[in-house]
Order: sequence, then structure tokens, then C-alpha cells
Amino acid sequence: MPKFNPSVADLAAPPVPTVFAWGRAYDGRRGPMIDLSQAVPGYPAHPDMLRLLSEYAGAKAYTGYGPIEGEDALRRAYGAHLAAVYGATLGAANVHITSGCNQAFVCAAMAVAGAGDTVLMTDPYYFNQETTLAMLGVKVRLAACDPENGFLPDLAGLAAAITPEVRALALVSPNNPTGAVYPPELLAKVFDLCRARGIWLVLDETYRDFLPDGGVRPHGLFDKPDWQEVLISLYSFSKSFCIPGHRLGAIAAGPAVVEQVAKIMDNIQICPPRSAQAAVAEALPLLAGWREENRLEIAARATTLKETMAGLNGWSIGAVGAYFAFVRHPFAGTPSAAVAERLAKEAGVLCLPGSYFGPGQESYLRFAFANADRATISRLRERLQGFGTIG
Amino acid sequence: MPKFNPSVADLAAPPVPTVFAWGRAYDGRRGPMIDLSQAVPGYPAHPDMLRLLSEYAGAKAYTGYGPIEGEDALRRAYGAHLAAVYGATLGAANVHITSGCNQAFVCAAMAVAGAGDTVLMTDPYYFNQETTLAMLGVKVRLAACDPENGFLPDLAGLAAAITPEVRALALVSPNNPTGAVYPPELLAKVFDLCRARGIWLVLDETYRDFLPDGGVRPHGLFDKPDWQEVLISLYSFSKSFCIPGHRLGAIAAGPAVVEQVAKIMDNIQICPPRSAQAAVAEALPLLAGWREENRLEIAARATTLKETMAGLNGWSIGAVGAYFAFVRHPFAGTPSAAVAERLAKEAGVLCLPGSYFGPGQESYLRFAFANADRATISRLRERLQGFGTIG
Repeated sequence: MPKFNPSVADLAAPPVPTVFAWGRAYDGRRGPMIDLSQAVPGYPAHPDMLRLLSEYAGAKAYTGYGPIEGEDALRRAYGAHLAAVYGATLGAANVHITSGCNQAFVCAAMAVAGAGDTVLMTDPYYFNQETTLAMLGVKVRLAACDPENGFLPDLAGLAAAITPEVRALALVSPNNPTGAVYPPELLAKVFDLCRARGIWLVLDETYRDFLPDGGVRPHGLFDKPDWQEVLISLYSFSKSFCIPGHRLGAIAAGPAVVEQVAKIMDNIQICPPRSAQAAVAEALPLLAGWREENRLEIAARATTLKETMAGLNGWSIGAVGAYFAFVRHPFAGTPSAAVAERLAKEAGVLCLPGSYFGPGQESYLRFAFANADRATISRLRERLQGFGTIG
Repeated sequence: MPKFNPSVADLAAPPVPTVFAWGRAYDGRRGPMIDLSQAVPGYPAHPDMLRLLSEYAGAKAYTGYGPIEGEDALRRAYGAHLAAVYGATLGAANVHITSGCNQAFVCAAMAVAGAGDTVLMTDPYYFNQETTLAMLGVKVRLAACDPENGFLPDLAGLAAAITPEVRALALVSPNNPTGAVYPPELLAKVFDLCRARGIWLVLDETYRDFLPDGGVRPHGLFDKPDWQEVLISLYSFSKSFCIPGHRLGAIAAGPAVVEQVAKIMDNIQICPPRSAQAAVAEALPLLAGWREENRLEIAARATTLKETMAGLNGWSIGAVGAYFAFVRHPFAGTPSAAVAERLAKEAGVLCLPGSYFGPGQESYLRFAFANADRATISRLRERLQGFGTIG
């Protein structure tokens, strides 16, 4: 057989299916599986969302090819939404719709870095960002986040890691996997650092709608007069509207970035799936109240998780915030994948091992607590207490 | 501003929007625009297709993430369809669903070639395949197709072009842009060549359902005992089901290829859009009769085009087959983009310049005749006759 591209062949198998296989091996001895694995909302899409999806999917108007950059209606709606969230001057020309936020990252990464270039990330990182760069032949440099500092990135560490080969810094806030919400002041300093060093800041804001503090804007970077020459902001409609299966995400950036991304998207997909775009364009203002209710609910789930984990022998929460908690397990020296596999099979708790998120994360597990309701989260205490020690 | 990835920055703007802009500049003087530009079916999706799309898009069951490789139902249905079309043993394990055929090509290309490797293509080529390779830093080598031989690839030319850096040969049959249908015997020889030289054969069969001869299988490559170690076949549901806006394509290959593609797709998109997959899984057997009617209709349009162009001063058909004709214009020495722009603005005929499809194609224009009904195609004669000479 002719050989495969080593940058792809050397990638491990996608992590989530591996974890699902552990879950299938659970015999139910401790009750129904508590699934905290994949980041999917633990409540259904709004009936109006389903109605709109159905309506537009059946419409002849959306069967043909659409604009590469996305439907005008969704670009305008998302531009207006961004303007409101950030109190900034943003519009349709700043928006490129993608088929999910992974695709937004692929496009952003390709726009700014080619094979042999370097992109700086944190450790821990979101694993698909790391594997995306690896498959593109882009080198990854990691800057460690200190657990003692709530896994926030360290400015001096970032500054030291930005060597001339580095084309961009990729951050995620609120963070996946830790849940940490990066403070606006920190993000402003990171932005200034990137600008000073002439690199792009690719900021994944997929979990922006689940900030524990409502009404507070996530950051003021869009106020910076030259933000279009530094910032590329990524977003997903999957979590906020509970429609990951419809694959919609977005890039917010300067028109020069949008122009580059359009060239990439034309090759990758010609255009994002259309009818779901039309549906989300309408749902964006329509379901604002519902999204706010969900934000409150997920904040309450975070509180329940903190209460549930308090004083649990050997377990501690390294960070918790929007959607995720990064939890330190009590089995020092045991690989996190072994802990997660046993947790799934013996305790009926499905989560992702810290090692999936970086070489320094063997002591941690990612709990996607947003997946489970509060009653389910409360049952974690008994499951983890009874889990004992790894022999 | 930090710089962009030169492999992306150096790409020209996507071609189709440029051509649409010429169309918008047409003042209607010769009657309604005859649009032969983008490859989109000139008839609507079947009502049952729209019904199924609507039904599944509104279903809660398809809102979550799905399998990376595609919905089981569609993989099975497409595997069974392939088995019937090719009279070969093919099934779900040979299928990876993608979000359109461009994405299928991106995945296939990344699976077999990285930056610095070389992929061999024909001149003319399908432009998005060339720009995809360029943006990935993959080098492109071109083997010319002889117009005197109906633009079929030349076996000796291909053999000479396969040097050690070449990882794959990318072909399109039925061809885009020429419409040429590659005979099964030629494809068998090309397959043997690729096998002997240890390279992959990536064969885009997007237009397979529009072969002028019905009931004849496109090729016998899936009969070869070692086909899984050579062939990667690509397909699009866009043209056959008139749903390009829903973005669905497929890869048919050995399980080892499917495994590599899954790693790429996990990064690019996590999974293809789900509800449309469920809809097409049902439509694939249901609309077989309708697709056959469309095949006959498009074959009739090809006949009408040949009649319409016969004896037209200076114009000649270089190749015609499924979906496309590659037409030689009478303005020797004038760049094909200048001819196409004037045709759009002055004659109300929208088509793509040959230069978009390769450096050797300035004498040609691509007519996507499947876009227009027979009455419209007949009106081409008067438009082209009246077009005169370029001053």
C-alpha cells in the first residue's frame, strides 16, 4: 500500500470514540452512567429552533449553493449580536460562518500558519486544536498554565515562548478543558503582547454564552483601534443552541482575515450548510431569553458540582467555570487515561482524561458538567467516594 | 498586520463569485441571462427530498453530535448503492461521509500528501482541487490532456510524470471541466500504472450519475483484488439530489483510508451535518427512478447543445459528456477570461473561462449545460452568432 501522509498517520485515533467505548463497557452496577464526557448541552434544543430548522431545510430556496462567507442574514445577525455583547462596532463584514468551531479553527490556523511555522498554545489545550496543527505540519509550542493560578495563562511564560517562528497564539476562553474564564484585563495584556510581537491572537470563545457572571462583557479587545490586525475570534452555535449535529460556527475578524478564510472555505466546503444558517439567523434574537436561562442553569450546575466535590477525600477542583471543571484525581502516579477508564467501567462516570489535553495534565480529568442536570451531578459524590483507590 | 500564510495569501480569489459579478453587470439586452457557470442542476430537488430534509432537520434525534465517519444509515445505503452501481463487494466500512465533495478531496489529499509532497493532476483540472493542494503546500504536477484525443489523459504522459515525489494521481471522471467520460479500459490501465508505481489514485466521480450511457458501470476498478491499496473514490450528493446547499459528499475506499480520513474529519468538522444524511439515506433508494429521468434529461441537453453548436462559425466543442462541455471559442490569442467576461456582459451567456482550469486552456470555455433546459440551450446559437469578434 502506498504510504499515508505521516502528519496524519501519526495522529492518535479521535479521543471521544475511545472514551465512548469505555462507557459501553460499563455494566450499570452503580446506576445509570453519569456522562460528563463530550461537551454537549444536557438539555434539548428549543422547540422554536427545531421548527425553524425544519422549515428552512424543507425550503427550495436553500437547496442551491450559498455565499462562501455564509448567509447574509446570519452574518448580519451574528455581527449585531457581537456588537451588543462587546459594545463594539462590528458587523456582517467581520463575520465568516463555518461548519462548526473546529472548522473555524482550521480556517484561522491555515490563514496564519503553514507547514513548518509554529503556533503557541497553552498546556492544557483543546485537543482538536493541537491535532489540527499537527496534521497541517504546523509546529506546536506549549506554554504551561499554573494550576495554582487557576490555570490562567502566564504572561511572562507566553512572552518568553514567542520566538520568531511563532505566527500566532491560540487561546480558549472560557477555557476547554479547565472551564477557567480569562479575566478581561489578562486578555487585554495578552492582546498587547501579541500586537507588540507581531503575531495573531486566535481566541476561541465557544463557551462565551455560559459565563458565570451575566451581563459582563467577556473582554474589551474589539475596542482596540487596531484589533483587526491582531484578533481572530472563534465561536460555535452548537452549545448555545444545542445543535452540534447541524454544524455551525463563526469567525469574527477584520475583513482582510475574512477574505483569506473565504479562499480556504471555498476549497474545504464551498459554503457552510445553508438552511441551518437561515434558522439560526432567526433564532439568535428570538431565543436570547432562553439562552440566558440556560446560562443561569449551567452556573447553578457549577455550584452544585463545587458543593458535591467539597471535602471529597483526595479529589479537588483545579478549575471550574463555564461548562467544564478540571478535576484533580487522588491517584498520583496513575495515568489519567487509566483513571478515566476505570471510572467509566466501575463507577459509571464518563469523563475525559487530562492527558488528552496536554503532556502536563496526568493528574486531572475533565468533567463536562454542563451535560448533566443538578440531581445527576449530586450523585457524583457517592460514585467518587465509593471508587476507592487504584490497585 | 502580522503576515498571512503565503500558501493561502497567494491564492487568487474564489473564481465563481468573480464570474457572478460579470453576470450582474449584464443589462439584459439579449434577453434573460443564460447561466452555464456553476455546476448546479437546472431543475429543483424532488418534493420527497425536501420533505425528508424538513422532517429530519426538525427531529431532536439529529441535534447532537454524530459519528465522525457519517450516519450509519447513510454509510450503509451508499455502500449498497456502490455495490449495485459497480457490481462489487462494497459496504458501510468502505464509506466516509463528508460535507460535500470538495471536503472529500481535501480529506483524501491530506490523507496521502503533506506539504512538500507532489500530487499529479491533469491539465485541465478542477480548480478547487488545484487550490486545495496549493493551500496545503502540496506541489502540483500537471500532465496535459490532448484535445485531439477528447481531453482524455495520456497514459504515457502520466507514466512519465510519476517521479518519486509523487504521492497520488488525482483524476475526475466524468471530467470537470471537459465533460469527458473516461472509458473503463483507460481507467483500468491508469489504476495498474498507479499500483505499479506505488501511488494512490484519487478519482472524483461526482458526475457519475449523469453518464450518457445508462446501465453501463463507470469502471471495474472495485473488482481488482487490491483496489483498497490504490483507489480512493470521491462522490457528491449535491448534483444527483439537487441539494448542494446541504453539503454532502462521500469517500469510498479501504478501511485503512477511512481510518485516516476520520482523524482529519474529526479536526475539520467533528461530523458531517446529520439530518441531511438521514434524509439522503432514505432518498437514495427512493429517488432512483427520478435520478434516472434526470440522467436522460441531461443526456438530451447534451444532444441539444451539440445540435446548437454545430457549424457555428469559429466555435467548436472540444469535449462534451456528463454535465459539462468544454467549448473552443473563436478568438485565438484573446485570454479566455476576457472572452467570458464579454460573453456575460454583452451576450448574456455566463460560463467559466478555460484559464480557471489550467495554464493550457486559454482557448476554451466551460459550459455547465446541465444548468439550463433544452429551450434555453437552443437560444445559445443566436447569442453566440451575434457575439461577433473581439475588437
